[in-house]
Amino acid sequence: MRHLLTLALSMLLALPAAAQTTGPLTIDKQGSFFIGGREVQSDALSTLPAYAPSGTVTVDQMYVRYQIPVNVTGRPLVLVHGCCLTGKTWETTPDGRMGWDEYFVRRGHPTYVVDQAWRGRSAGSIAAINRVRSGRAPADELPTVFSAGHEPAWAIFRFGAEYPQVFPGMRFPLEAQGEFWKQMVPDWLNSVPTPNPTVPALSELARKLDGAVLVSHSQSGIYPFQTAALDRAGIAGIVSIEPGACPAATSDMAPYKGLPILVLWGDYVGLAPRWTPRLKGCRDFAAAANAAGGQVEVAVLPEMGIKGNSHMLMQDNNSLEIADWLAGWLAKHVGPKG
Amino acid sequence: MRHLLTLALSMLLALPAAAQTTGPLTIDKQGSFFIGGREVQSDALSTLPAYAPSGTVTVDQMYVRYQIPVNVTGRPLVLVHGCCLTGKTWETTPDGRMGWDEYFVRRGHPTYVVDQAWRGRSAGSIAAINRVRSGRAPADELPTVFSAGHEPAWAIFRFGAEYPQVFPGMRFPLEAQGEFWKQMVPDWLNSVPTPNPTVPALSELARKLDGAVLVSHSQSGIYPFQTAALDRAGIAGIVSIEPGACPAATSDMAPYKGLPILVLWGDYVGLAPRWTPRLKGCRDFAAAANAAGGQVEVAVLPEMGIKGNSHMLMQDNNSLEIADWLAGWLAKHVGPKG
Repeated sequence: MRHLLTLALSMLLALPAAAQTTGPLTIDKQGSFFIGGREVQSDALSTLPAYAPSGTVTVDQMYVRYQIPVNVTGRPLVLVHGCCLTGKTWETTPDGRMGWDEYFVRRGHPTYVVDQAWRGRSAGSIAAINRVRSGRAPADELPTVFSAGHEPAWAIFRFGAEYPQVFPGMRFPLEAQGEFWKQMVPDWLNSVPTPNPTVPALSELARKLDGAVLVSHSQSGIYPFQTAALDRAGIAGIVSIEPGACPAATSDMAPYKGLPILVLWGDYVGLAPRWTPRLKGCRDFAAAANAAGGQVEVAVLPEMGIKGNSHMLMQDNNSLEIADWLAGWLAKHVGPKG
Repeated sequence: MRHLLTLALSMLLALPAAAQTTGPLTIDKQGSFFIGGREVQSDALSTLPAYAPSGTVTVDQMYVRYQIPVNVTGRPLVLVHGCCLTGKTWETTPDGRMGWDEYFVRRGHPTYVVDQAWRGRSAGSIAAINRVRSGRAPADELPTVFSAGHEPAWAIFRFGAEYPQVFPGMRFPLEAQGEFWKQMVPDWLNSVPTPNPTVPALSELARKLDGAVLVSHSQSGIYPFQTAALDRAGIAGIVSIEPGACPAATSDMAPYKGLPILVLWGDYVGLAPRWTPRLKGCRDFAAAANAAGGQVEVAVLPEMGIKGNSHMLMQDNNSLEIADWLAGWLAKHVGPKG
């Protein structure tokens, strides 16, 4: 009955119905590759006798894994994780449900999951560590790498106001939090070259895909905007989920003119001092962009009646309902390749 | 005609024929998860004001991505990469051909591709870096992390005797070497806890899969042997490709008794001083193990008429022919789940 109701509602709203989450999946093609990368000479590659200290290494490249469905009905989605995480963000949820990487394939979207430069399978340089270790540089030249601890991350991800409190009705699968903490990796963001190589890599990937939607999250939230400012070519739309920052309302709005942009937020933002000003900043950006011919929508899930979402909404217990809503937004505002 | 000949030969030898490398692929299930992991308290997680220095992080876990075919005809394969690389080793080759991760799925084997502990999507600890950076520890307490430069790696991977020489007939796709260098990541191996957490994680994964073949490469070559020595449960066979070391011939052979084990080598081993003694060590191990009731086979591809393979034989231009040969070996010596 509920299924019929959902189906009827989807038809009324001209939204695509939900995809199957069980049963075999047929894919047309899958694989992985790198975008970008820079060759660097170094004499500090190793302090171990078994490996030579001098040579060339390649850094700054961005790892990409993709799957293309047999029946493509939507735009390719490039899924970019946030701080202290990797592309794993979009895969199987901590409690074992299907990730957006597969679900959007089942909905007809090719998906491209990346590891940001210097994260996960995308190599960074450790030469500075070896220079300090071998006494050739002072300790303050070490990289400013950090790990987010579970306790401070708790409030950042809005599981509750502070560890271990939980917001009422919060939808992140906390019973599987151990599996989520395993997703977190050290973050070299502050030692990565400027501009972050992930941005030109996203641009190159978008041009290669010739009409992709860049989907970012949190720390990477600003990247699709920076990518569009670099070069609009290949970018069919932007979905920025709970961005650490939107472009400043005073910045040049030309890069966003006529581009379908969604800034998507979960619940409890008003209860989180870290996030409240960020949502306000995005509303200010949207107003400025739209006044200049933009198509920016700021969507706050609880304002649409969808309550209880954390910062990790792609892993929350209603993650596929949000994916369905997002697929509808994409169908309406971006559409398939013309 | 050649296809018919191959097919006829396969039937004669009772080997499975080659799988399709083009056309859609139907998978029963896919996803990713972590195995293992340990919670660590630290006060050196960050030297940045935006992130708290104190808290709990989870390290030592092993990332696993898997695909299960609709028609399972062979054992699950756990694919473990080598030094300075990640699970990317087994995915799309540098020149864009299908990786073993997908090809073995097409051949009926579930595949489980891992990132070793402290590599790729499997987090390690950076607390030692921050302790030194904040003046709380001396520089020699920094991790002994290294990167393999292209030039020294050239000889290690046996593209030629030394950079940039090429062995005659060598099959690695050097025209795409840039993409291969992008696969390389810094290696924390020498700062990882002992025993390497990848080994108990492989054991837990094998038990979970209840009859897996552990396929290792190079630096990870010894891990399946160490895993079997830890606990034979769940291990249906071992394929060690060009291992950095086999177990010592003088070690206890009880863990390997009755277990189908293949140690597989490419070409030019006799021309590579780094590798020649390692092959000899594996032959000595095989002799000792077989004298004690073992089923260890050391297979050297050029001795079987397959010439030109580098150390990266899963990426060489005949990688799928080797996969076919390996599938035949598995069918004959390990077989499907009973």
